[in-house]
Amino acid sequence: MIHQFIPQHYFNTIGNHSAVLMIQDRDTVITTTVDARGWDNNGDSAATRGNPMTGPFYVEGAMPGDTLAVRFESITPNRDWAWTTNMLAPSVIDPNVSVTLSASDIVRWTVDVEQGVAFLEDPSPSLAGLKLPLRPFLGCFGVAPTNGQCISTATSGQYGGNMDYKGLVAGTTVYFPVSVEGGLFYLGDGHALQGDGEIIGTGLEISMDVRFTVSVQKGKTISWPRGETDTHWFCIGNARPLEQALQHATTEMFRLLQEDIGLSSVEASLLLGQAVEYEIANMFNPAYTVVCKLSKSFLSTVARIDQ
Amino acid sequence: MIHQFIPQHYFNTIGNHSAVLMIQDRDTVITTTVDARGWDNNGDSAATRGNPMTGPFYVEGAMPGDTLAVRFESITPNRDWAWTTNMLAPSVIDPNVSVTLSASDIVRWTVDVEQGVAFLEDPSPSLAGLKLPLRPFLGCFGVAPTNGQCISTATSGQYGGNMDYKGLVAGTTVYFPVSVEGGLFYLGDGHALQGDGEIIGTGLEISMDVRFTVSVQKGKTISWPRGETDTHWFCIGNARPLEQALQHATTEMFRLLQEDIGLSSVEASLLLGQAVEYEIANMFNPAYTVVCKLSKSFLSTVARIDQ
Amino acid sequence: MIHQFIPQHYFNTIGNHSAVLMIQDRDTVITTTVDARGWDNNGDSAATRGNPMTGPFYVEGAMPGDTLAVRFESITPNRDWAWTTNMLAPSVIDPNVSVTLSASDIVRWTVDVEQGVAFLEDPSPSLAGLKLPLRPFLGCFGVAPTNGQCISTATSGQYGGNMDYKGLVAGTTVYFPVSVEGGLFYLGDGHALQGDGEIIGTGLEISMDVRFTVSVQKGKTISWPRGETDTHWFCIGNARPLEQALQHATTEMFRLLQEDIGLSSVEASLLLGQAVEYEIANMFNPAYTVVCKLSKSFLSTVARIDQ
Amino acid sequence: MIHQFIPQHYFNTIGNHSAVLMIQDRDTVITTTVDARGWDNNGDSAATRGNPMTGPFYVEGAMPGDTLAVRFESITPNRDWAWTTNMLAPSVIDPNVSVTLSASDIVRWTVDVEQGVAFLEDPSPSLAGLKLPLRPFLGCFGVAPTNGQCISTATSGQYGGNMDYKGLVAGTTVYFPVSVEGGLFYLGDGHALQGDGEIIGTGLEISMDVRFTVSVQKGKTISWPRGETDTHWFCIGNARPLEQALQHATTEMFRLLQEDIGLSSVEASLLLGQAVEYEIANMFNPAYTVVCKLSKSFLSTVARIDQ
Repeated sequence: MIHQFIPQHYFNTIGNHSAVLMIQDRDTVITTTVDARGWDNNGDSAATRGNPMTGPFYVEGAMPGDTLAVRFESITPNRDWAWTTNMLAPSVIDPNVSVTLSASDIVRWTVDVEQGVAFLEDPSPSLAGLKLPLRPFLGCFGVAPTNGQCISTATSGQYGGNMDYKGLVAGTTVYFPVSVEGGLFYLGDGHALQGDGEIIGTGLEISMDVRFTVSVQKGKTISWPRGETDTHWFCIGNARPLEQALQHATTEMFRLLQEDIGLSSVEASLLLGQAVEYEIANMFNPAYTVVCKLSKSFLSTVARIDQ
Repeated sequence: MIHQFIPQHYFNTIGNHSAVLMIQDRDTVITTTVDARGWDNNGDSAATRGNPMTGPFYVEGAMPGDTLAVRFESITPNRDWAWTTNMLAPSVIDPNVSVTLSASDIVRWTVDVEQGVAFLEDPSPSLAGLKLPLRPFLGCFGVAPTNGQCISTATSGQYGGNMDYKGLVAGTTVYFPVSVEGGLFYLGDGHALQGDGEIIGTGLEISMDVRFTVSVQKGKTISWPRGETDTHWFCIGNARPLEQALQHATTEMFRLLQEDIGLSSVEASLLLGQAVEYEIANMFNPAYTVVCKLSKSFLSTVARIDQ
Repeated sequence: MIHQFIPQHYFNTIGNHSAVLMIQDRDTVITTTVDARGWDNNGDSAATRGNPMTGPFYVEGAMPGDTLAVRFESITPNRDWAWTTNMLAPSVIDPNVSVTLSASDIVRWTVDVEQGVAFLEDPSPSLAGLKLPLRPFLGCFGVAPTNGQCISTATSGQYGGNMDYKGLVAGTTVYFPVSVEGGLFYLGDGHALQGDGEIIGTGLEISMDVRFTVSVQKGKTISWPRGETDTHWFCIGNARPLEQALQHATTEMFRLLQEDIGLSSVEASLLLGQAVEYEIANMFNPAYTVVCKLSKSFLSTVARIDQ
Repeated sequence: MIHQFIPQHYFNTIGNHSAVLMIQDRDTVITTTVDARGWDNNGDSAATRGNPMTGPFYVEGAMPGDTLAVRFESITPNRDWAWTTNMLAPSVIDPNVSVTLSASDIVRWTVDVEQGVAFLEDPSPSLAGLKLPLRPFLGCFGVAPTNGQCISTATSGQYGGNMDYKGLVAGTTVYFPVSVEGGLFYLGDGHALQGDGEIIGTGLEISMDVRFTVSVQKGKTISWPRGETDTHWFCIGNARPLEQALQHATTEMFRLLQEDIGLSSVEASLLLGQAVEYEIANMFNPAYTVVCKLSKSFLSTVARIDQ
């Protein structure tokens, strides 16, 4: 079934809030998200700033210990401008380098969805020729966390949240560990594009039209968000410091190779050691995000012994 | 001028050792390196283990405050096997996951330079089909550090060293800050290929034939190694923790954009924020390595105001 | 007014739960806490494990932007035994050192409140003579956090929480930033004693009788918990990595010296540089805790210029 | 034998330099050190800035694998003034707090050795009453490192170096792992006093008269510097990040309790968990320093099973 859902209110925390819609396994939802400051497709303030979330969506049958898969069919900017900050974050620069934000800290960009590019609305001469290709994704989404917690959309954890990973574009399927009945899926914080690490603290912040389909993997238990594209499997770790985020992501991939693919720890190590790829998704939020990736082309050569 | 240089001895530290060869600006050197344990092209032990270095090469005219550019024309395995360890390093995995190395900690791989692939010599059934594409590079190279220091080839710093960055393949030019007369360039620790992060502590360790050309940039001062490929500019940061390595690399790129390209700090931030790429080169050595990259395609759109 | 409060239920999160008691500014509460696994003074399971909290107490007049002061008049073990784990946490030991917990991971200690000592119930010969002096404190307490969050009592933040700081004994006054009406004060997780860092993951875990008095400082805004003993002022930082916890604590002390004492940033630096003391409170929980202290003996020599 | 040694030159690296004096096991040396910028007892510039070292002293019989014990009998300022910086280091403060050093970055203090106090030479009114008790120690000392390395006195490692631990006062014995014949002991960087963490980047920097006695522990192998006072045993870890420094120090203490005292890993954990103390020695240098301490009063209760 396909649901058209128009949000009436938004949440700035991810947790055990009342669901806005009950959906079935395999259902599709078409909805919208406002930007990180709550501005909608008309540029109107529709929600309180700080990554307001559309949702939560209750998925029938999803129970603690299951995995919720969310496939994004489309993530499309629904207005023609975005905003960013204009200065590197202190967390990505040597401590003795000054990176004070100017008073007017928001810069506007034109977003041309048809041409697939973005450029500054009012560039300085040096940046007048800069056109960047769009790569729209959602910066913040996930499911209700464990223990009845209700956590700010500024941060992230095993439940997802504000991961700001630029690889989470349309065509990607993301898997979350379910901690409460119905999973309670939230989404928002669209970016028209972003560099690695979200190093100025924002992508091109924008409101979105989103279409996604859920499915429940009964009895499948994972510890951290996983994902799949046409070319790669990946696992996401969210934590500070950056090492710990990388450790979580690598550990989840290590488990995937052992539990799902049937490799031994030595086999998984030999494969990962020479074939692993990492992406630094964000080094700005309270929890940093690292993604551990493995090409399907290598995985396809790995035979399960029991096959 | 082209020098054919056959190493007679090797160093396990990078510092103010006596030069093995004096060369001129623009000279080319053709030489060899032994592997990380000192095994040469015949598999004989030619040097003490721990990244023994070929060199140092004294480059006439290179003085403290200058930059030494080294362009690698070729880096080619000169034997048909390599070795790796077989278990993830504790630094990349959650602390509660056991990753004890087995007693026999070395695994041998066949390296087929003609076919451009590597595979396990004695694979388990699961990995029997695994073939990985070669991407030969040098794990450890650099110039003498500041203050007359002499530092183990286990680690790295502003002078280069054991960075284990898989992007340093043939065709790349690397730039080092010169700290002593002649620069004193060392090289070694060849890897036939490696994943991001060197997460099992080794790439495919192998001896190499190497050809490189030096040039001195008089009066050009940089703080961290920089590099250039056909498609990207990059800057390398070496430190623990991983955040600090990233901060050094980003700061060096921030400087490059301001000092070499003429951008303001706001312009550099706007560009990097949406276009930066990071690679995690190693998260195994005493100093971790992060690479901050920027596509030349974006840089080419950026006009210098004074042009 | 003095309230005798007997808990009927407990919370494993700190957040906007319904208050169990409304109290006035300057009121005193006499109550009890169960231990970290929910075992009460009789050793019965009274609550779900994971630092179950007594409270929350709603303090009339406390509003966001105010500071809530809590003075602990007494914290007294109300049973004669405690428990600990028996192995160093992986977070405090080199990654290559094995610290696997044994199957039976709980060790019982006798707690003799009259003699003021604790000793192992069933010691090995080597530890048969070990008697440790009691120093009872609460490991976890604080007020509701910002933004309607509801956060597990496993961790901590600007609102307090699971700080496990052994200095928070009777006689100490702790100050919290108020984020919701009434502040909503929670307390629990008593320790009969503990070393620095909570490096085996527990203190001597025990249930407690507690007496405390609240007071509201209207219009006084702080960012991190502060505290006061007879001899010291202190500020608490909670974060990972350990550096960040130290930075939060130091920054709060830096602010205290400037805003409350009237020092300039140079004067505060000169004083702190030579007189600051740090304690590592916990290096086990999701957020580590560092305490920045300054002796009142030095502060008393510092004249406010305007005095 | 007692040697009076007057330094003629100084080193800014610790490594395999030619010894300035050969001494025997159990010999005592009376000598002097200049301050961190090379200023001597007369305030004259006697050496290049950056912690110039007196030494190295070659101790007959000290061989790799042994331990060198150095007992400091006296460490006494030999002039009446010291200097400090005047602003918190960026490494100890939140990244968004400005801590720019003023142009004139050196502040002078009067050091009154007879009265045992220090005070600012030219205080602002607020600090006019500040008198701090002297606690003289050496910030930087140690032995030649492994592998023929020669390392800047800015940093530290397993060989000692720039640890800036305020506990290393007269009366303390420090133990170092010997890596080269003769050990090669260096010393310098005196501080008349200092707070925890060396958080403004200096103690009260001053030249010193020093008297110390060496002894060689044949066949005794340690991994990190250890030390002993009248009241405590301690182990020192030097690394970044701060967690890693703490891990090294704790691991060395864990080994000490097992190898020297004969405890099992569980016994050592039970003892350390409730009795350990930490000090943050420096959070300013390239390697941070954490000290893990254990009171001799607890150790004295621990019987060796085999006694």
